[in-house]
Amino acid sequence: MEAALETAVDNEVSYFLDDLHVGQRFTSGRYRVDADEIKRFAREFDPQPFHLEEEAGADSVFGGLAASGWHTAAMTMRLLAKGGLPLAGGIIGAGGDIAWPQPTRPGDELHVVSEVKEIIPSRSKPDRGIVVMRSETRNQRDEVLQVVTARLIVPRRA
Amino acid sequence: MEAALETAVDNEVSYFLDDLHVGQRFTSGRYRVDADEIKRFAREFDPQPFHLEEEAGADSVFGGLAASGWHTAAMTMRLLAKGGLPLAGGIIGAGGDIAWPQPTRPGDELHVVSEVKEIIPSRSKPDRGIVVMRSETRNQRDEVLQVVTARLIVPRRA
Repeated sequence: MEAALETAVDNEVSYFLDDLHVGQRFTSGRYRVDADEIKRFAREFDPQPFHLEEEAGADSVFGGLAASGWHTAAMTMRLLAKGGLPLAGGIIGAGGDIAWPQPTRPGDELHVVSEVKEIIPSRSKPDRGIVVMRSETRNQRDEVLQVVTARLIVPRRA
Repeated sequence: MEAALETAVDNEVSYFLDDLHVGQRFTSGRYRVDADEIKRFAREFDPQPFHLEEEAGADSVFGGLAASGWHTAAMTMRLLAKGGLPLAGGIIGAGGDIAWPQPTRPGDELHVVSEVKEIIPSRSKPDRGIVVMRSETRNQRDEVLQVVTARLIVPRRA
């Protein structure tokens, strides 16, 4: 990963449920992925030809080497965990939905823009709540590569 | 990964859209994950304490070291790609929804049971269609760790 560009977001603040409001946005640092890393992830977790070889990618619906969607998801998670989404208690997802409007390509530089869509304090557990967060993973041309709308468990201030 | 148990599913058949019916099921091989591998994935992609250290996991909502949900997703993808879901043209997802009813733990042995929920031939592209596939990732006690309901692009027979 030495070759990859990564800018850190240095967040000293972390947000409890009570600190959030609908429409609030968070922007992550950036991470550039190259062909070798796309192939390395694919060899371990998604060994399909269009994620492993340029020619097979070109012959597929992707029209070129394409990162596994799960690789995009994993790189997105890293950007969020490294300051892109500074929630108190960490980023704990119960689930959500995921879409890949277009694949991540070699040389793409990813960043993630997250927006609070809904805040639901728990009725049974007064110390926490659910935040519905939409996180768009975009490349350097601001094309949307992934959209995750997740239900996150976020603690309340004591 | 030498220490991990993995049984291969050797599928010589691959399924086109025309070969599928609603309710059809596919079962993957098995894969056992240990604490080192959980931590290794977390260090690279989801560096949060409850995925990295036993003590931090015990002190969290997980009550013990827990794999990143994205690690469970990636291991699920590998089981599907290695014969667990033998679709013609590979496993190409446009998106879907994902839930993690409980986390993957060290020593869990995963397998994936997939079921065809819906088959939607494309109106505009007669050579393909969308298959809605529900894939449950279960451990050795048949506890469900992840449920993905995905929209897959599947080719038709020529």
